Amino acid sequence: MILLDGLATSKQIKQEIAAEVRQLQAQGHRVPHLAAVLIGENGASLTYVNAKVKACEEVGFQSTLVQRSADISEVDLLKLVDELNNNPDIDGYIIQLPLPKHINEHRVLLAIHPEKDVDGFHPENVGRMALGLPCYLPATPAGILELLKRYQVPTAGKHCVVIGRSHIVGLPMSILLQRNANPGNCTVTITHSKTTNLPELCREADIIVAALGKPEFLTADMVKEGAAVIDVGITRVPDSSKKSGFRLAGDVDFAGVSPKCSFITPVPGGVGPMTIVSLLMNTLEACKRRI
Amino acid sequence: MILLDGLATSKQIKQEIAAEVRQLQAQGHRVPHLAAVLIGENGASLTYVNAKVKACEEVGFQSTLVQRSADISEVDLLKLVDELNNNPDIDGYIIQLPLPKHINEHRVLLAIHPEKDVDGFHPENVGRMALGLPCYLPATPAGILELLKRYQVPTAGKHCVVIGRSHIVGLPMSILLQRNANPGNCTVTITHSKTTNLPELCREADIIVAALGKPEFLTADMVKEGAAVIDVGITRVPDSSKKSGFRLAGDVDFAGVSPKCSFITPVPGGVGPMTIVSLLMNTLEACKRRI
Repeated sequence: MILLDGLATSKQIKQEIAAEVRQLQAQGHRVPHLAAVLIGENGASLTYVNAKVKACEEVGFQSTLVQRSADISEVDLLKLVDELNNNPDIDGYIIQLPLPKHINEHRVLLAIHPEKDVDGFHPENVGRMALGLPCYLPATPAGILELLKRYQVPTAGKHCVVIGRSHIVGLPMSILLQRNANPGNCTVTITHSKTTNLPELCREADIIVAALGKPEFLTADMVKEGAAVIDVGITRVPDSSKKSGFRLAGDVDFAGVSPKCSFITPVPGGVGPMTIVSLLMNTLEACKRRI
Repeated sequence: MILLDGLATSKQIKQEIAAEVRQLQAQGHRVPHLAAVLIGENGASLTYVNAKVKACEEVGFQSTLVQRSADISEVDLLKLVDELNNNPDIDGYIIQLPLPKHINEHRVLLAIHPEKDVDGFHPENVGRMALGLPCYLPATPAGILELLKRYQVPTAGKHCVVIGRSHIVGLPMSILLQRNANPGNCTVTITHSKTTNLPELCREADIIVAALGKPEFLTADMVKEGAAVIDVGITRVPDSSKKSGFRLAGDVDFAGVSPKCSFITPVPGGVGPMTIVSLLMNTLEACKRRI
């Protein structure tokens, strides 16, 4: 069993990005600049945004955290989006979700200029991904592809079962893995809450991407000997043995499943760190396009 | 076995569209207007475009056929696209493919304004489809969905195998059938030339969408008793018993497969007529949006 070490890989990629940033500077260019918009005081959102800002610092990017209070009007938020679209100093930006309930999330995400949409959430980027055109890939699927590529996990002709059809992980993952590309060329089955025979489907899979958000859902009896397993889930589970009172659990029962696997991602330290690195890669790409 | 009669259904839908057109007129609005761009002298393309123009006439739409010679420059074609985008009298338009080889097809298709892209080929429409936002669906998948809906073919929780991953049929079909919608909520497996165990996969399927373009590829031994089979293929096969010297064959061996099916589309008269009707539905929708 080979551990797909997202933490180590993300560190390696950060070094590669930092080297590219130094090269850009040496050529007289400015460094990539990511802005992150945070609305309100959601603790988890603040943690995520801070991690992104910190990652920018590590690789030598400029970053700007734009904070607004939770009572911002949709009109004012759309004005802010317009400013960010037109600010030539900012290569790309993200709007940390969720947004307060009085704001139409779709309307705000649609207002982001596709060329600055480094989260890859805008329909134009999603469509370009499906059509195999240059685009910003959504961060988590892009991070998984990068892991598969660097560990040379075989994908062509393999049967991949994706569990979950979310717009940010399951669906794009299913689209990306079926493409005529490397990684890619998988036969892909996308499954969800209406799927009736998930255990049987999983047992036939060469690759399983578990992205449903149910702690330790995928158990050893659902996994074929030699399968590659990608665990996208990360949930806080109460654990009285921990000082914090909880532990982080993936969607995969790692202890049971990992002995059967050819490759598997741990949680934490698997897909999670790769997600932030994808955002950095998209921002670097956005900067290079502007140069 | 129930025949999914695309010809009869398309006639029914045309009557419904014609009634809507009369209603628009009664309200003092102009009728929907579709333009079709035909470059060069490709016989098949001319046949397809003429069929679309004729369908427009049948439902009371205005239609304009814009013909240019095969030696048109890309710059001039892009100018034409720009004119069509800005012409307020045209609700939607299509550019018949293929284009001459000296023209970059992607560049031209990307230049079509998404709001006039009634073929649903622009990345923004493809992305909107994936995200479940309002959009123009590509014509063939939309026609198949309409057939499934009108014949009340059960889809929720069913396993659908899509054969072929083309950007205009297989891939969008796989995306549409997995959505949380009706028709939809299928477990979907997308297969292609790199798939290693297609017969086994097909035998497990409740619904098969054959869209690979190989005459009579899907045979009875690959189909489960009671499956629903959608045949997207249409190929000219030499046949000396016919005056024309050929017959039209689908991707399904209809004679062998149909006795096992719960539902099946014939070729011709199945998916084909539904495709043109989808284009009409998109154009009507475009017109209503402009009103």
